[in-house]
Amino acid sequence: QVRALAGDLHEADAADILVALHADDRAPFVSLLGKDFDFAALTEVDEQIRVAVLEELPTEVVVEGMRELDSDDAVYILEDLDEAAKAEILEQLPIPDRLSIQRSLDYPEETAGRRMQTDFIAVASFWTVGQTIDFLRNQSELPDDFYEIFVIDPAFRLAGTVPLNKILRAKRQTRIADVMNETSHPVLATEDQEEVARLFERYNLVSTAVVDEGGRLVGVLTIDDMVDVMKQEAEEDLRALAGVGDEEISDSVTDTVRSRFIWLLVNLATAILASMVISLFDGAISKMVALAVLMPIVASMGGNAGSQTMTVAVRALATREIDRRNMVRTIVRETTVGAINGVLFAVLIGIAAGLWFEDVLLGVIIGAALIINLVVAGLAGILIPLALDRLEIDPAVASSVFVTTVTDVVGFSAFLGLATWFLTG
Amino acid sequence: QVRALAGDLHEADAADILVALHADDRAPFVSLLGKDFDFAALTEVDEQIRVAVLEELPTEVVVEGMRELDSDDAVYILEDLDEAAKAEILEQLPIPDRLSIQRSLDYPEETAGRRMQTDFIAVASFWTVGQTIDFLRNQSELPDDFYEIFVIDPAFRLAGTVPLNKILRAKRQTRIADVMNETSHPVLATEDQEEVARLFERYNLVSTAVVDEGGRLVGVLTIDDMVDVMKQEAEEDLRALAGVGDEEISDSVTDTVRSRFIWLLVNLATAILASMVISLFDGAISKMVALAVLMPIVASMGGNAGSQTMTVAVRALATREIDRRNMVRTIVRETTVGAINGVLFAVLIGIAAGLWFEDVLLGVIIGAALIINLVVAGLAGILIPLALDRLEIDPAVASSVFVTTVTDVVGFSAFLGLATWFLTG
Ligand SMILES: [Mg+2]
Ligand SMILES: [Mg+2]
Ligand SMILES: [Mg+2]
Ligand SMILES: [Mg+2]
Ligand SMILES: [Mg+2]
Ligand SMILES: [Mg+2]
Ligand SMILES: [Mg+2]
Ligand SMILES: [Mg+2]
Ligand SMILES: [Mg+2]
Ligand SMILES: [Mg+2]
Ligand SMILES: [Mg+2]
Ligand SMILES: [Mg+2]
Ligand SMILES: [Mg+2]
Repeated sequence: QVRALAGDLHEADAADILVALHADDRAPFVSLLGKDFDFAALTEVDEQIRVAVLEELPTEVVVEGMRELDSDDAVYILEDLDEAAKAEILEQLPIPDRLSIQRSLDYPEETAGRRMQTDFIAVASFWTVGQTIDFLRNQSELPDDFYEIFVIDPAFRLAGTVPLNKILRAKRQTRIADVMNETSHPVLATEDQEEVARLFERYNLVSTAVVDEGGRLVGVLTIDDMVDVMKQEAEEDLRALAGVGDEEISDSVTDTVRSRFIWLLVNLATAILASMVISLFDGAISKMVALAVLMPIVASMGGNAGSQTMTVAVRALATREIDRRNMVRTIVRETTVGAINGVLFAVLIGIAAGLWFEDVLLGVIIGAALIINLVVAGLAGILIPLALDRLEIDPAVASSVFVTTVTDVVGFSAFLGLATWFLTG
Repeated sequence: QVRALAGDLHEADAADILVALHADDRAPFVSLLGKDFDFAALTEVDEQIRVAVLEELPTEVVVEGMRELDSDDAVYILEDLDEAAKAEILEQLPIPDRLSIQRSLDYPEETAGRRMQTDFIAVASFWTVGQTIDFLRNQSELPDDFYEIFVIDPAFRLAGTVPLNKILRAKRQTRIADVMNETSHPVLATEDQEEVARLFERYNLVSTAVVDEGGRLVGVLTIDDMVDVMKQEAEEDLRALAGVGDEEISDSVTDTVRSRFIWLLVNLATAILASMVISLFDGAISKMVALAVLMPIVASMGGNAGSQTMTVAVRALATREIDRRNMVRTIVRETTVGAINGVLFAVLIGIAAGLWFEDVLLGVIIGAALIINLVVAGLAGILIPLALDRLEIDPAVASSVFVTTVTDVVGFSAFLGLATWFLTG
């Protein structure tokens, strides 16, 4: 009865059920469903759950399930397993499946070759639309879904593509050469998945050809998998900015502690650096405790302003919105924004602090320190990501430590330094 | 000559040229290209550039360009113009175009109805595959791209969908009813675009039907536009976390200052709150300046740990990975992670501070304060986003202010409070 209910489920819904089940019930559930379980559901669950289920299932069941999958999904499921398990499963797969999976596995992780599907439809340019349709009708082993047909030359080199709707609009006797798009956007199998996803987004693609170094057609990438890449890469950047690492909500406590420890450690180092700056001015603080009370304001305003600029800069770098052409303009703009907000808040805080401690000079000094720190924040927020990008370090991962270090150090030393000079000196 | 060069460009490449041109040259460039300029390029540039170009172009040119567009792109271009300009353009468009654009504009912003394309192909379920193909061959006004055909009943209610590849695989005499998918994933025209994009991602859709409250087919949404929605919504959340508002790299300095001012103002309020907490302990600080030197460490470690948890929580809420089922488990987990990292860093910092100031008790106190603050950070990082979500306030926008306020206040008061009690009291 479970089988009747679950058999017609979309893979995403089947995946939800799997996740909702107790960890011990997942593999038995898959076994129980047998042929009615669509292994594609395993591509929709977290890696940790996927690996656990696959390790518990008998190899025959896994092999049987993988035979029904498109090659890209089979690769996705296999790639996280350990070498022994991988080899055992591959051995039992029919030779054509094994070869096409192996071919993808031979490309590095996160490349077009690793993510591609090796089942696609390719025809010669001298065929007619009618011949093509007849070919499709008689073919038994077609991919689950496809959106375009590839046109190849006798050496299997890509000559063009035809979207399905163009085939349907054309008369039967039309030659494929006359309906095909010559400018398609093929990608190299060794291309990084993030670049490919960007290409899909830019040119509004639903699928694209993957070619090897010789220009020969080796596979196809489809938008649904690129959407997953876009999501994955965007989350990676967001998590990197907050220093969380490659974490999933189903990770164990130990994994999570580990993934966050490093970041907190780096942050500790920068916090200690800030403390050392403060300790340079301990004389001034002991004469005037108001300095200790006010100093976090200067640092924190700088930190926030810096993060604002940095977030915009990191995203603009990731989406290639900042380039050589508009770089100088962007730097000038961010610094100007920092200066303007610096002056606005200098007035606000200067007056507030002056009134609070009944000390006009203290108000002027915190205002001046704030202007300095917000200008520096704007500069650091843009220059640090740009510099990291130039050094080929991912700006999303490293920017925020540097930016807050700069704004803390500059904030504390500008404020305490000016105070030492003018107030307590 | 420019015309010959630019005429064959993809809209995304034409958009790049437009952006690269000086602001004054953009409208003349469009006029120069005339019919060779694809107005779809305007959907690929920032709003500010789009509006400026459209305002400068003569209405006839805009009307001429818009006639060639799919209805969704026409709506996208029109919606940002002021009411007068919008009305003037609509008036000059042919009646069918005007009606379908008006229909979309009548739906609220960021809904399926506003984003849909009103050109689609619908057939009756008793048609054969052959009839459908012949119909497509004889139809002159088809959408630019389409991936499925909709099946409707006599009342125009959606009965199912047929992906184009299924039509190509089937024999001519097959009835549409026999190849159609009955379970498709239609969306209501009033549905929020973000929900729709999530549906596309979940079910790996390339297009889906839009229906009105009566279940009647009114339009179609395609994946390329949903990819833009996903990107837009993800950026919105990222920017919200950093307090940057709806900013684009081409915005003016004034717009940018304005968009960041509010956030800095809110941050100022919380920084002043933290200062007030510190001033409660000014007696202790004046007796022992080391407290002023060390206190930022406790606050900053808490702030970072809180942001880590919060970032994970906000994303998990946005992608619906946290729900009632795993909520309690997630809260317990985050608090445990906070406690463990708290103990680890308490030892580290405790020893460092004890050695630095040659004061064991000071080391113990900063360690204890750190454990308290990291546990609170874990709790606040998860509970604040959950509470905001429950109150239907976007957790991405408001969480980080609250989280850092909590970790600042708790950090300063735990450390300075314990120090007052045990060291200087
Ligand atoms: Mg993987
Ligand atoms: Mg599939
Ligand atoms: Mg990557
Ligand atoms: Mg696009
Ligand atoms: Mg796939
Ligand atoms: Mg997939
Ligand atoms: Mg990346
Ligand atoms: Mg808009
Ligand atoms: Mg929205
Ligand atoms: Mg998906
Ligand atoms: Mg569209
Ligand atoms: Mg578009
Ligand atoms: Mg949103």
